[in-house]
Amino acid sequence: MHAVHQLEEDAGAPLIASPLPQTSGLSIARRTSDINLIKMTASASDIAEIIARSIAAIIGVGPGTGRAVSLRFAREGFSVALVGRTASKSKSIEDEIKSIPSFQGKVASFSADVTQESSLRKAFSDIREQLGDPEVLVYNASGFARGGILDLKTADVEGALRSSTLGALISVQEVLPAQVKNKKGTVIFTGATASKKGSAGFAGFAIGKWGLRALAESTAREFGPQGVHVSHVIIDGVIDVENKDIDGRIDPEGIADTYWHLHSQHPSAWTFELELRPYREKW
Amino acid sequence: MHAVHQLEEDAGAPLIASPLPQTSGLSIARRTSDINLIKMTASASDIAEIIARSIAAIIGVGPGTGRAVSLRFAREGFSVALVGRTASKSKSIEDEIKSIPSFQGKVASFSADVTQESSLRKAFSDIREQLGDPEVLVYNASGFARGGILDLKTADVEGALRSSTLGALISVQEVLPAQVKNKKGTVIFTGATASKKGSAGFAGFAIGKWGLRALAESTAREFGPQGVHVSHVIIDGVIDVENKDIDGRIDPEGIADTYWHLHSQHPSAWTFELELRPYREKW
Amino acid sequence: MHAVHQLEEDAGAPLIASPLPQTSGLSIARRTSDINLIKMTASASDIAEIIARSIAAIIGVGPGTGRAVSLRFAREGFSVALVGRTASKSKSIEDEIKSIPSFQGKVASFSADVTQESSLRKAFSDIREQLGDPEVLVYNASGFARGGILDLKTADVEGALRSSTLGALISVQEVLPAQVKNKKGTVIFTGATASKKGSAGFAGFAIGKWGLRALAESTAREFGPQGVHVSHVIIDGVIDVENKDIDGRIDPEGIADTYWHLHSQHPSAWTFELELRPYREKW
Amino acid sequence: MHAVHQLEEDAGAPLIASPLPQTSGLSIARRTSDINLIKMTASASDIAEIIARSIAAIIGVGPGTGRAVSLRFAREGFSVALVGRTASKSKSIEDEIKSIPSFQGKVASFSADVTQESSLRKAFSDIREQLGDPEVLVYNASGFARGGILDLKTADVEGALRSSTLGALISVQEVLPAQVKNKKGTVIFTGATASKKGSAGFAGFAIGKWGLRALAESTAREFGPQGVHVSHVIIDGVIDVENKDIDGRIDPEGIADTYWHLHSQHPSAWTFELELRPYREKW
Repeated sequence: MHAVHQLEEDAGAPLIASPLPQTSGLSIARRTSDINLIKMTASASDIAEIIARSIAAIIGVGPGTGRAVSLRFAREGFSVALVGRTASKSKSIEDEIKSIPSFQGKVASFSADVTQESSLRKAFSDIREQLGDPEVLVYNASGFARGGILDLKTADVEGALRSSTLGALISVQEVLPAQVKNKKGTVIFTGATASKKGSAGFAGFAIGKWGLRALAESTAREFGPQGVHVSHVIIDGVIDVENKDIDGRIDPEGIADTYWHLHSQHPSAWTFELELRPYREKW
Repeated sequence: MHAVHQLEEDAGAPLIASPLPQTSGLSIARRTSDINLIKMTASASDIAEIIARSIAAIIGVGPGTGRAVSLRFAREGFSVALVGRTASKSKSIEDEIKSIPSFQGKVASFSADVTQESSLRKAFSDIREQLGDPEVLVYNASGFARGGILDLKTADVEGALRSSTLGALISVQEVLPAQVKNKKGTVIFTGATASKKGSAGFAGFAIGKWGLRALAESTAREFGPQGVHVSHVIIDGVIDVENKDIDGRIDPEGIADTYWHLHSQHPSAWTFELELRPYREKW
Repeated sequence: MHAVHQLEEDAGAPLIASPLPQTSGLSIARRTSDINLIKMTASASDIAEIIARSIAAIIGVGPGTGRAVSLRFAREGFSVALVGRTASKSKSIEDEIKSIPSFQGKVASFSADVTQESSLRKAFSDIREQLGDPEVLVYNASGFARGGILDLKTADVEGALRSSTLGALISVQEVLPAQVKNKKGTVIFTGATASKKGSAGFAGFAIGKWGLRALAESTAREFGPQGVHVSHVIIDGVIDVENKDIDGRIDPEGIADTYWHLHSQHPSAWTFELELRPYREKW
Repeated sequence: MHAVHQLEEDAGAPLIASPLPQTSGLSIARRTSDINLIKMTASASDIAEIIARSIAAIIGVGPGTGRAVSLRFAREGFSVALVGRTASKSKSIEDEIKSIPSFQGKVASFSADVTQESSLRKAFSDIREQLGDPEVLVYNASGFARGGILDLKTADVEGALRSSTLGALISVQEVLPAQVKNKKGTVIFTGATASKKGSAGFAGFAIGKWGLRALAESTAREFGPQGVHVSHVIIDGVIDVENKDIDGRIDPEGIADTYWHLHSQHPSAWTFELELRPYREKW
C-alpha cells in the first residue's frame, strides 16, 4: 500500500531503492519496506509466492482477537500458525483462512499450554519445522485469577502470571533470534485495561498484565535498535467476541486492522504502545 | 480497504449494511465506514466524486509533517485546506497535490496567524466558504520559547501557549459543530517528546505541549461519544524534514501513514494516543 | 526532628557534621539538614532567632491550603509572606500566626494579581525588602475557565493559563537566584486532579494545570542538581475549606503536613511528585 | 507530632475529639489519629505502653532500607518484627533497636523464604503469636533475574516473580484482616526505578516490580475505603547501603523518614505513590 503511494508520488524515481546508510551493522529499508520493494520490481505471481513465505504466529487463538488477527494476516498473504490450548478448536479458523480466495500461504494449528514451558517450546519447534521462522508474533494469551485480595489463591495467581508473562517471554525467546538475523520482525503483545490500572478486585489479572507490559517495554528497548518492531496494544473495552455488532463493544476486525497497521509502520515511525477503545467507552 | 476485506470475507452478505442500533440518539456505522459503504454500492466515478467532497484542514503546513499529511489525504481523495502563516509558502505543496494523477478534489491555501484569534477564525470561515466543513482537522502548529527557567520571557512563553494551545482550541471550536451534526469527524493533534516530559531547558515548549495534550484528552472525552475521533500523536524524534533519508530521523510519510490509519480506524476500536519514534531512538 | 533521631542513633558521634564531599561545586548537607545542624550546636533561643530568618512565601492564600500551609511553616519557626489578590483578606491569617505562642518570626501580607507580571514582580520585590529572600515558595494559585469545549472563551482560557502557569514561572524566577546562591530552597507547586486528567468539561482548567506540571518538571530537572527541591503535589479530592470535618473531604492541615515533610526531606531522598486524596476517594 | 500542633492551634478545643460521622459503617478519626488522641489524654508512661503495643512487620530486612525503617518505627515506639531469609542476620539490628534509650517495645527476628508460601505464612503466624497483629507492614523483598531477554531462564524469572509479587500478596493477606477489623493499618510496598520503566536488560526485574505496583494499586483501591493506607514508594536511585555518605546515593534514613511520614498522614490526605531520588539523580 505504501509502495503504491510511493509510485504515485515519486513517479520519476528509480524502482530500486538506493542502499541505506549502514548503522551499527544494521541496514533497514527506509521509505519502502522490503516487501513493498518487491512489489515494485516483481510480477504479481512472484509477489504472492514471496509473501506467502512470511509467517505469522498467533499465540492464544480464540473467537475474538486471535481469529480476526489470523484472518487479517492471511488475507495480506501471510502463512499463519494458530496456537491454542486445543488445536482442534482452531479448525474452523483454519477453514476460514483456506477459503480466502486469494490465499496462497499455509495455515496450521498447534496445541500448546502456554503455562508449560516444554509444551510451548515444542509448539514453536513444530512451527519452525512445518512453516518456518515467524516474522510476526502476536502474543494474545493471558491468565486471570478472580477475586478480591483476600480471596486470591497464590497457585491461581502464579498460573495467571505464567500465562500472561512467562509464556510471552518464552515466545519472544523463540522468535527473536531469527528476527534479529533477518533484521526484520514484528512482535505484538495484547494488553488490557488492567495493563495500566490496578482496580479493586482485579489484582489477579493486573499483576500479570502489568508484568507483560514491563516485558514488552524491555523487549522493545533491547530489540528495536536491532530492527524488530515490538508493540503493546491496550484493549480498553469489551470485545464483541461473537461478532454480533453490539454497540459499545470492540469489533475484533478493528483490532486486527490496527495490528496490521503496526506491522506495516515505517521503521522510522514506530509505535510502541496504543490503546483501542470504543467511541463511547468511559476512560 | 476495510471494505475490500469485508467483501472477501462476507462474500454472501448483502452489500448494504443493516441499520445500526440507535444509542443515545447516535448512529455510527459499524464494520464498514460510511465511505466504505459507498464504495460497495457506487460506481468508481461516483465514489471519487463523493469522497472529494470530504475536506481535511491541515493547520501548520511546513515541509515535514504538514506537507506529508496533506499529500496523503489528497491521495486518498480528500479535498485539502492548507493553513500556514504565509499562504504563498504552501504553493509548492498545492502544486504537488494538483499533480497527483488521480486527484479530483480541491486544494487551497489559507494564511493565518494561529496566535491571533480573529486571523485564525477568518481562515476557517474562508475554508468553509471555499471548500466546505472539514471532516478532518490536523492541528500541527506549536510555539517554542527557548532557554532555561531564568531566561524565559513571559511574553515569549505566552506566545508559545497561544500557538500550542489556544490556536488548537479555536480550531476545534470551528470544526466540531459540523462534525457533531454529521456524526463524523477526525481531529488529530500533533504532540512531541515534550508533551509528556518536562526536560531541563524545555519549559517554554513543554508548558504548551502538555497543555495541548490536556485539551486533546478533554476534547476526546467530550466528543468521542458524539462520534468524533480525537487523537493525540506524540512525535518522539527528529523529523527528516528535508526528506533526505537520514537514518534515525522520522520519515514524514511514516507520520502521514499513521495519521491516515487513525482516521480509518473503526469507531469501536479508536486510539486516543500513540507515539511515533525511529527504531533506534532511545526512550 | 531528623536531628533528634540522629542524636539518639549516633550517640557517640561528634555534634558537628563533617564537611561533605564537594560535587560539581555544590555542597549539600547530608544526614542532617543545616537547620538540624544548628539545632544540635546552638542554644534554644539562638535556634529560634536563626530559623526566624528563613522565609516562606505562599502565593495564593485562601482559607484552605494557603492558610494551613502558612500556619504550619509559621509554627515551624518560619517568617511568612502571604500573597493574595487582596492583602486585607489575609489579615485574619496574619492574626492567627501572630497569636502562635512560640512564633518569633515576621508575617506580612502582600497584594498581587498573579495574572499581571508587574504586579506579581512588585510583590516579590516588596517581600525581599520587608522580609528577605524566600527559602520556600509555595505556588498555590490557579485559574479556571468553565464549560465544555464549545463554550470556552479564549480570553478566559488565556486568563486561566496566566494564573496557573505564567504566574508560577514568574514566581520561581523571583526566588530561584537566591536559592541557588544559598544552595538551599524548596519550591512546591499545588496541582489538582486535573493536572494529569483532561476530563470532559474541564479543558479550561486542565490546560493550565498540565502546563504547571510541565513547568514543575522542567524546573526540578534544571534546579534539583543545584540544590533546590522542586515538588508538585496533586490534590485529588475536594478540600474541606471551612474546616468542618466533612468526611471524604481533605483536611487542609493534612496537606500542610505533607508540604512540610517535602521541605524536610533529605536531599538524597527527594520526592518530586505525590498525590493527596481522602481514604475513600475513588481514583 | 500532628497532635502537638493541634494543641498549639486549637488551644481552647476539648481534648477528646468529637465522634466522626459514620460513613458506610466506617469511622476514621479525623484531624487527630487515634494515637495522637491518646497522647492528648494520657500520661507519658501510659502513652509509651500503649504505643508499644503497635507492631510493625518489616519483610526483607537488609542493611539498607529494611534496617533504617525498622529503627525508625522502633524509635517512634513501635514493636518490630524483622523478617529475613536468615533470622540470625537481623541480630545486629535487633541489638541496635534494643539499645535505643527510649525503646520500650519488643523486637524479634523471624526467618522466612518469601518465595515459599508455607514458610512465609509460618513467619506471620509466629509474629502474631509472639508480638500480635501488625498495624504496619513494609514489604521490602524483591527478586531479580539478570540478563537480556534471550539470556533469561524462566525458572529464574518465576523465582523473581515469587519474591516480588506473590510474597507481597501473601503478606498483605496475612495482615489485612486485623487491619480492617481495627479500622487502622498501613501497608508500604518498596518499589524501584524498574517499577515503571522496562529498560533493556532489566526484564527479569521489571516484570515483578510492575506486578508489585499493580498489586499495590489494587490493594489500595480495595482497602483504602476500609481504613487501610496502602502506599507504593519508588526508590529511584542507588541506596547508600553501607551508610558511607556517598554523594548521589540515597541515605536509607531519608527513606525511613518518608515511610514514617506516609504512616503519619491524615486519612483525608493520603498518598498512594511517590518516588524518592537523590537531588542530582538524572530522571
